[in-house]
Amino acid sequence: MTLSMEGVFWCCMRTLEWDDAKRQLKLIDQRALPARLAYVACQTPGDVAAAILNMTVRGAPAIGVAAAFGLALSALSVEDADLVEQRARLRQDAALLLAARPTAVNLRWAVERVMRVAEDWAGKTGGLGALVLAEAKRMAEEDVAVNRRMAEYGASLISDGDTIIHHCNTGALAAVDWGTALGAIRMAVEQGKRVHVLVDETRPRLQGARLTAWELSQYGIPYEIITDNAAGHFLRSGEVSRVLFGADRVAANGDVANKIGTYMLSLAARAKDVPVICVAPTSSIDPGTPSGAEIPIEERPMDEVLCLEINGEPVVPAGARARNPAFDVTPHELISAIVTEAGIAYPPFDQSLKNLLQQAGKIA
Amino acid sequence: MTLSMEGVFWCCMRTLEWDDAKRQLKLIDQRALPARLAYVACQTPGDVAAAILNMTVRGAPAIGVAAAFGLALSALSVEDADLVEQRARLRQDAALLLAARPTAVNLRWAVERVMRVAEDWAGKTGGLGALVLAEAKRMAEEDVAVNRRMAEYGASLISDGDTIIHHCNTGALAAVDWGTALGAIRMAVEQGKRVHVLVDETRPRLQGARLTAWELSQYGIPYEIITDNAAGHFLRSGEVSRVLFGADRVAANGDVANKIGTYMLSLAARAKDVPVICVAPTSSIDPGTPSGAEIPIEERPMDEVLCLEINGEPVVPAGARARNPAFDVTPHELISAIVTEAGIAYPPFDQSLKNLLQQAGKIA
Repeated sequence: MTLSMEGVFWCCMRTLEWDDAKRQLKLIDQRALPARLAYVACQTPGDVAAAILNMTVRGAPAIGVAAAFGLALSALSVEDADLVEQRARLRQDAALLLAARPTAVNLRWAVERVMRVAEDWAGKTGGLGALVLAEAKRMAEEDVAVNRRMAEYGASLISDGDTIIHHCNTGALAAVDWGTALGAIRMAVEQGKRVHVLVDETRPRLQGARLTAWELSQYGIPYEIITDNAAGHFLRSGEVSRVLFGADRVAANGDVANKIGTYMLSLAARAKDVPVICVAPTSSIDPGTPSGAEIPIEERPMDEVLCLEINGEPVVPAGARARNPAFDVTPHELISAIVTEAGIAYPPFDQSLKNLLQQAGKIA
Repeated sequence: MTLSMEGVFWCCMRTLEWDDAKRQLKLIDQRALPARLAYVACQTPGDVAAAILNMTVRGAPAIGVAAAFGLALSALSVEDADLVEQRARLRQDAALLLAARPTAVNLRWAVERVMRVAEDWAGKTGGLGALVLAEAKRMAEEDVAVNRRMAEYGASLISDGDTIIHHCNTGALAAVDWGTALGAIRMAVEQGKRVHVLVDETRPRLQGARLTAWELSQYGIPYEIITDNAAGHFLRSGEVSRVLFGADRVAANGDVANKIGTYMLSLAARAKDVPVICVAPTSSIDPGTPSGAEIPIEERPMDEVLCLEINGEPVVPAGARARNPAFDVTPHELISAIVTEAGIAYPPFDQSLKNLLQQAGKIA
């Protein structure tokens, strides 16, 4: 696989990295890509929450790990206080981080995991800051391993010669490394399979056109950008053999909350019996959410829809207003397979997801 | 209904107007809206073909009438030549105009109607130029009357309190006046019905965000812009009671070729039993096209997809390529009603469309 020099450089970097010397979290600024590869440093939990909210960092796995480091920054900031005060601060910052992205369950999963470690700690040796930081680092390493295993399972569902429509960005940028659906595509290519990716733009934030196109160009994987509107046409024409995307939350029945547009794409794929493959770590599966109806859908600022320009001119008329739900729910009937690091779940998902979670030791 | 001063000004103007003094066709430059209300003058058939190709003028009814005036310009340019030469020139320019938009059948309908008049002419009185110009003017006037009748039929399918998703632009800008689907909405409002329009952006050319939003703001009809991706979410939530769009060509079996994205929108509407209403004049119905499979789909330049900017920066990475089909086909099974100026067709469309065309005297 050929990589541009920038690609080599970037592949040595990660979406998020902890800087021990400066005690800060470094994030690739995903708002600046593909124009610039820039970094943002977070020195407080508030910085991390803001980075999630303004989408400096995005992607369900990535924001989970970012939040864990956010809690490390919280604990490190009150190292000299007593344990009661430290924990109070941690709980306060946990709430701040949780509010930053209500739909994605990885965020809650990560925050709860760190909080459990912090609450369980007997307070004997070292500091709470070191403890939380160590847990966050462990989660970052685990994320890479989990995503790599998921990519291998996902690649097994991709055939040589596939044309794949991919929604949003689910690559290395959406995780610590590898990513979910795009990780599976990258792994399939590393296994020698030839694939062609139709990258849908993913309005309004254009993660497809900006980030997935950029990642694919770095990996040397052939792709073409299509508008979200055009997916149905390419599916109906018979040109597309797979549809892949990630998830922000998978309900117990297999309903998937994911980036807005996933539902219509899945409908169009199922209308032509094209497999609809969701790739997401078990940390995105929420056995406490019975179905998609219980998943809160974040509405984001209308300016994300209205800010488009062409030739330097605004697209919409003055005074225009917009609605901007950031996610939608794809009902489980439309989904062919849910790929996790613990294996692949097939319908009926209520049973298969439960089996996977038990296997992974996540539920009893 | 309150109109802004600009609205009043615009409502006295038409999408296209013939200027007798200068012997030229004036078109509202739809590429400049909503930033500027500007006009383009066409003095040759080549100017008109270019205006269709570069989307200065768009919308199936509008480009049909524009092409008729294009033929008038052709005939007027060779007034001093003999009739054989005049007709040869006219045939050549007809081919030029027809090539400008292969999907929309109104263009062919209009060109064929004018050519029939020109070919049938005995050459006795006046000039061929005057004859063709008179026919084009007649077609422009007929278009207004046809669209108004269509709007009345369409309005009968809109209820007080409806929330309507509208695709692309089908308003006065897409015709000589009134338009198709948006004309029906405007008529419903004039009848005192309260409606709310969710205007989908309609990538790549953003006719929804640019033109439909602008028209609705001129008419004082409440609307919000949504990304094309979000239509499924609003349909699934139960918030939407109607989906309306126009057509570039309706096949004999009721399959509809229309702006890219119509198919996915219709799929999502039918999944929730929301009525899918296509509004198009009988000149958009092509009894010679058995089904959507026979309709050519125009692929447009990839730069239409790739040219987006946000904050003055390009969205896609350098070297990115795109696919850009401008239309898609919505199979008749997904369509609830096709509204024409001759009445409303319901499934089974092969029979009901035939009845309407017979009634309108368009087929025997």
